[in-house]
Amino acid sequence: MSQHPVTDDVIALAEALMERVSVTPEDAGCQQLMGDRLRPLGFALETMVFADTTNLWARRGTSGPVFCFAGHTDVVPSGNESAWRYPPFTPTHDDGYLYGRGAADMKGSLAAMLVATERFVQKHPDHRGSIAFLITSDEEGPFINGTPKVVETLEARDEKITWCLVGEPSSTTHLGDVVKNGRRGSLSGELTLYGVQGHVAYPHLAQNPVHRAAPALAVLAETEWDHGNASFPPTSFQISNVHAGTGAGNVIPGEFHVSFNFRFSTETTAEDLKQRVRAILDAHELDYAIDWKLNGEPFLTAEGELVQATVHAIQKHTQRTPELSTAGGTSDGRFIAPTGAQVIELGPVNATIHKVNECVRVDDLQLLVDVYESILEQLLC
Amino acid sequence: MSQHPVTDDVIALAEALMERVSVTPEDAGCQQLMGDRLRPLGFALETMVFADTTNLWARRGTSGPVFCFAGHTDVVPSGNESAWRYPPFTPTHDDGYLYGRGAADMKGSLAAMLVATERFVQKHPDHRGSIAFLITSDEEGPFINGTPKVVETLEARDEKITWCLVGEPSSTTHLGDVVKNGRRGSLSGELTLYGVQGHVAYPHLAQNPVHRAAPALAVLAETEWDHGNASFPPTSFQISNVHAGTGAGNVIPGEFHVSFNFRFSTETTAEDLKQRVRAILDAHELDYAIDWKLNGEPFLTAEGELVQATVHAIQKHTQRTPELSTAGGTSDGRFIAPTGAQVIELGPVNATIHKVNECVRVDDLQLLVDVYESILEQLLC
Repeated sequence: MSQHPVTDDVIALAEALMERVSVTPEDAGCQQLMGDRLRPLGFALETMVFADTTNLWARRGTSGPVFCFAGHTDVVPSGNESAWRYPPFTPTHDDGYLYGRGAADMKGSLAAMLVATERFVQKHPDHRGSIAFLITSDEEGPFINGTPKVVETLEARDEKITWCLVGEPSSTTHLGDVVKNGRRGSLSGELTLYGVQGHVAYPHLAQNPVHRAAPALAVLAETEWDHGNASFPPTSFQISNVHAGTGAGNVIPGEFHVSFNFRFSTETTAEDLKQRVRAILDAHELDYAIDWKLNGEPFLTAEGELVQATVHAIQKHTQRTPELSTAGGTSDGRFIAPTGAQVIELGPVNATIHKVNECVRVDDLQLLVDVYESILEQLLC
Repeated sequence: MSQHPVTDDVIALAEALMERVSVTPEDAGCQQLMGDRLRPLGFALETMVFADTTNLWARRGTSGPVFCFAGHTDVVPSGNESAWRYPPFTPTHDDGYLYGRGAADMKGSLAAMLVATERFVQKHPDHRGSIAFLITSDEEGPFINGTPKVVETLEARDEKITWCLVGEPSSTTHLGDVVKNGRRGSLSGELTLYGVQGHVAYPHLAQNPVHRAAPALAVLAETEWDHGNASFPPTSFQISNVHAGTGAGNVIPGEFHVSFNFRFSTETTAEDLKQRVRAILDAHELDYAIDWKLNGEPFLTAEGELVQATVHAIQKHTQRTPELSTAGGTSDGRFIAPTGAQVIELGPVNATIHKVNECVRVDDLQLLVDVYESILEQLLC
C-alpha cells in the first residue's frame, strides 16, 4: 500500500469536484484536490496563475514521448436553479445517473483521468515517457488566461506534448461512440445596430433598430454558409444574446445589441464569413458596427498513434468502433494542436451539457476509466 | 376682500407647485395647496386615497351641467440632475421662460386652471351648473389608483361629468396651436418565445427562439395595421424591449422576450390586433405566450359645445385656429371619456416635457388663464 491509498472510486471523486462551485473563471479548489491526488503518484506540480485564472501543469517523468490529459475545472452557470430537478451543485444520484453542473462537462472526465492514472501508475510505475495533466479554469469563458497561456509557457521552454487527450464530452448516445479528432473554427461577433431613440407614440421621430434589423437577422439565420466536407460538418451560425430597450414600455430603443457565433469548417475562412455577414447587413441598409473575435481556426488530427490507441481502447471496452468527428464545440485542443501535438477528445455523452439537469451515466464514468487506462497502456508501455 | 385674497398670479402658484418634489406617486402637498385655494371659492373637497395615491375631487355647485378641469400633480423623475441648467425642483426664470420639472407637464396648467376659476367665480358667483376639479398624483405611473378609481367612485354614485378639460400640454409650437380631442388606444404585449437552450456548437440539439422569431418580427414590423381615418393617424406597432441569452457567448438561448406596444385608431380594436398578432406568430409555427395589457381604448370628442367653446376661446385670445388632433401619447382623458363626457386636452407647448430643462413660456401661462376662463364663460354663463 502506498502512503496515499489508491482508490478507484471515480464517482466519489467526480462528486467532490462537482460540489465545488467553479463557475468560470473560478476553480474553487478543484485543482488543489487534483494536485493532492497527483503529488503522491510522483507528479511534479506547477500552478500557473494568469490574471483571474488558475492553471495546473503536472508531469510525471522527464523524457518523451509526453502523453497529456487536458481538461477544465470551470463550468458554465447553472441558469435558473429552480428549473433543475436537483440543486446544480449538490451531486445527486437518480436511476443510474449522476446529476449536477459539470457532471458531463467535464468533472466526470477529470475524475476518470485521475483514477485511470492512479491505476496505471500503480501497475506500471516505470512506464516510458511522461504523463502530464494540463488543467485550466478558463475553458468556458474568455480562454485568454487558461490553456493558451500555459501552452505559450511550455513552448517558450520547448516542452512538447506528443499526444493530448482532451476530456471533453465527445460521446452522443453511448460512451465512446464519437471521438473528436479535430474541431471547427469559432468566430464571434458583437453586433450593434443603431437607430434613433424616441417615444412609442411618435414613431415618425424615431427609428426602431429592432424593426429594421429583423429581416437581416432572418436572412443570417437561414443562410447556408457551406456544405462541410469529409472531415467537417457544414458551418453553422447562432445568435447567443440579444438586447434592446430601456426597460420602459413607451420608449423606442436607440440601439440593438446582437451577439452571434460561427462554428466553421475548412470550406470557408473567418475572413470570408465576415465579408458575407457585412454584405447581408449592408443589403438591408443598416447602420451598424461589429466587434469580431476569432476564437480559433479549425484543426484536424486525421490519423496517428493516438487515434489508433483510442479507437482500439474503445473497441476493447465497448465492442464499438467510434466515429471520428470534428463536429461540436470548440475545445482547448485548438490551442494545443498548433504546437504539433496529436490531439483527440474523448469523454462522456454530451446530451445534457450546458443545460439544466446536466448528468452523466454512472456506468459510463467507470467505463471511461478503463478506456483512458487502456490508452495509457498502449502508448506508454 | 375675501378672507383668502384672490390673486391672479398664476406664475407664483405654478412655482409653489413646482417646488414640491411630487414624483409619481407622490403628491407632496400639491393637492393641499390647491384645496386651500378652492375651499374659499365654495368648492366641496373630497380627498380620495387609493393605496399609494392621493386624489382630489372638488366641486362647486350641485346641479348640471358639470364642467371639470382634470390634471395631475405628479411629475416624471428629473433624470440626471447635473444635466439640468437649473435645479429641477427650484423654479427659475430665464429669458421669458420658467424652468423646472412639471413646468409644462402639468403644474403650469394646474395653476392656470385655478387662477381662471378664481377669476370666473369672482365675476360669476352664481354661474349655472357646476365646476369640478379631478386631480390625481398617478398619471405618469401605473394609472391604477388615480383617475380610473376616482371615475369608478363617481360612476358608482351616478355623478356625471358633462365637459372635461384635461390640462395636458397639447400645444406644439404656440399655445393653443393644437387641441387634443381624442387619443389613440394603447395595447401592450409581453411576448415570450420558447425554444430549447443548448450549446452553440450543437445547434441540432437546441432550437434558437431568436432565429425562429426573426421572420415573424420582420412581418410584425412591416405590417400596415390600418390606414387611420380623418381623426386618427394609422395604427402603429413598436417593439420597445427585447432580451434573449444567458450572457454567455456559447449558449443558444432558451427563451426570447419581446415587449411591444400598439397605438391604435378607431379603425381597429384591441381584440382584432391581438388576433392578427397571434395569426402572424402562428403562421411562423412559433411556440409562444403573450401577456396583454390594454392601457386604453381610443376615444374621440369629434364635436360639441366643449370643442366649440375651446376653439372659440383660442381664436379670441391667440388669433389662431387650433388643429384638432388625436396624435401623441395617452392621457387620463381615456378613463373619463367612456363615462359619456366630452373630453378635450389643452395645455402649454410640449417640446420639453419628460426631458431635462423642462420649461414653459411665462406669457403662455398668462394666456392659458385667459383661454380657460373664456371656456368657462361660454359654457357656464
